[in-house]
Amino acid sequence: MRATVMYQAGDVRIENVPDASVVDPTDALVRVTRACICGSDLWPYKEMAPDQGVRRMGHEAIGVVEAVGRDVRTIKVGDLVVMPFAWSDGSCAFCHEGLQTSCIHGGFFGTIEIPGAQAEAVRVPLADGTLFALPTREDDALMPSLLTLSDVMGTGHHAARMAAVRRGHKVAVIGDGAVGLCGVIAAKRLGAEQILLLGRHPDRIALARAFGATDIVTERGEAAVDRVRGLSGGFGVHSVLECVGSEQAMLSAIGITRPGGAIGRVGVPHYAAIPSSLPAFYNNITIGGGPAPVRAYIDELLPDILEGRIEPGRVFDRVTNLDGVPEGYRAMNEREAIKVMIAF
Amino acid sequence: MRATVMYQAGDVRIENVPDASVVDPTDALVRVTRACICGSDLWPYKEMAPDQGVRRMGHEAIGVVEAVGRDVRTIKVGDLVVMPFAWSDGSCAFCHEGLQTSCIHGGFFGTIEIPGAQAEAVRVPLADGTLFALPTREDDALMPSLLTLSDVMGTGHHAARMAAVRRGHKVAVIGDGAVGLCGVIAAKRLGAEQILLLGRHPDRIALARAFGATDIVTERGEAAVDRVRGLSGGFGVHSVLECVGSEQAMLSAIGITRPGGAIGRVGVPHYAAIPSSLPAFYNNITIGGGPAPVRAYIDELLPDILEGRIEPGRVFDRVTNLDGVPEGYRAMNEREAIKVMIAF
Repeated sequence: MRATVMYQAGDVRIENVPDASVVDPTDALVRVTRACICGSDLWPYKEMAPDQGVRRMGHEAIGVVEAVGRDVRTIKVGDLVVMPFAWSDGSCAFCHEGLQTSCIHGGFFGTIEIPGAQAEAVRVPLADGTLFALPTREDDALMPSLLTLSDVMGTGHHAARMAAVRRGHKVAVIGDGAVGLCGVIAAKRLGAEQILLLGRHPDRIALARAFGATDIVTERGEAAVDRVRGLSGGFGVHSVLECVGSEQAMLSAIGITRPGGAIGRVGVPHYAAIPSSLPAFYNNITIGGGPAPVRAYIDELLPDILEGRIEPGRVFDRVTNLDGVPEGYRAMNEREAIKVMIAF
Repeated sequence: MRATVMYQAGDVRIENVPDASVVDPTDALVRVTRACICGSDLWPYKEMAPDQGVRRMGHEAIGVVEAVGRDVRTIKVGDLVVMPFAWSDGSCAFCHEGLQTSCIHGGFFGTIEIPGAQAEAVRVPLADGTLFALPTREDDALMPSLLTLSDVMGTGHHAARMAAVRRGHKVAVIGDGAVGLCGVIAAKRLGAEQILLLGRHPDRIALARAFGATDIVTERGEAAVDRVRGLSGGFGVHSVLECVGSEQAMLSAIGITRPGGAIGRVGVPHYAAIPSSLPAFYNNITIGGGPAPVRAYIDELLPDILEGRIEPGRVFDRVTNLDGVPEGYRAMNEREAIKVMIAF
């Protein structure tokens, strides 16, 4: 079969690889019908060293189950399924608590160890716990939005939940990538009264406004902090969704959070220590977040997609086939595309 | 009048100073009947440079109102009052939300700018918002426990709340000072099932056990992390009360928190950045806390003290008069005393 392979920064190729198959009795084999490129895939695209190994990329997919191992009970051959970016057994203490990204037996797709979903097919471990069977057909017009349940919509929702967004809150979203844009949707969905997007790209800003952003902050650093404070009544916002992962983004997040407010961080942190420990302390700012348990959120978010109340699939502004994936990486890396969908 | 004055590290004196008085129309003048020395007073006692100015120490007190300014409405001359360590107007947005330590017009007692309460009397700004009138007499046997409402009991409670302690939780308390010990009380009060105290002093450990600690961890660093994990089922505890404020304490806190768990930090941080950003992220650990809004907690905690369900006053293991305050600092600094009460 064909799959996306990253060798080092800037070097991503479509290659023939051994066919994916059921290995363990709890596996499912999924033929991928939709996949996509993630903002987090751009980190290795920028930084991966040649001696780090070879990565079979991709951790977001929808597909059709082609085969299941003998211990798979609920997922059936022929099911159309969402594949969250992490697999999980669905039965450990953390899965029961809705934190599937800390599943005792779980892991992440598209790492150096585990093949990913930017491929014709993918082996899914612990299929019953991991996969979510959709009530739709694979040609449904909602497919782009449903695909976001595998990562970005659930991740934006996680940021909003960890930032304790409540009805009437003033909210800031740092980052205008697909996750930040889904964070805008999530904040609005949870009742935010004011939603400030910190971003600079006109196409993304337009989409953020369509999703519910009330104010756009294009400044950076201290100027951004001043502007957010000015727009939000002087003290900052109740909730900040930090959807970038840089130290500067976290510095800004702490600077714009109101005393007693909360930051939900979902951008993989590229900093060893969280800056501004003292201001965060004196202002009683809570910092939470991490890899989103998107599997837990599908139940809650799916009806809003099926009934058209949210349209996170609009973050896909480019569609390609598998051959177009390397160009998709380039386009996203150069901010020409927000998020690229791969259709098979 | 006489008051406690700190000139530099190790140099704390009792001196004659100008009498405290009502200055602003919202002030009250309080004759101090009980005060105490705080663990946080030991930071300047260890570190204050001679060129930093002069500090009139003390931020915890009970006393009798001797005079009020013309705009004071609810506090009356003769009231026996608790003075929280921060003053607050009781009417701003943050006070309404129960975060009096971020009051727009508030501040902190015992700083270089504002005289403190280790003195015969203290001027209390914004008296109506700040002071809490007690329903007891000044010779009540509960006075030590009531005095802890000015700081340490409310601070331990804040740590527990920010660490999201719930019924049935496994909880760890880092630090066996008065705040940590009050944190044990708070955790038990909120229904913790297991309470591990990280501390090393036999007298404090005995008190922690009396307050409800179920396990004592005397190890430090990695060994402490391993021991807590072993005692709590392998994954760490749901809630960590970080009552020290050192970088090592925060490192340990992150190491012993279960995925999805929370840390409430109330020790003034002596670190510029929060370490272990990545482990905290991958485990979805929430870090919150700051100066405790003890004024907000008095309503909730007072009945438990009045009815004898909690006895935080047991943290006072030494009583002195004003002349004994310098010796009290020395004894606390050398860990000979847990917390020193000043009786007038």
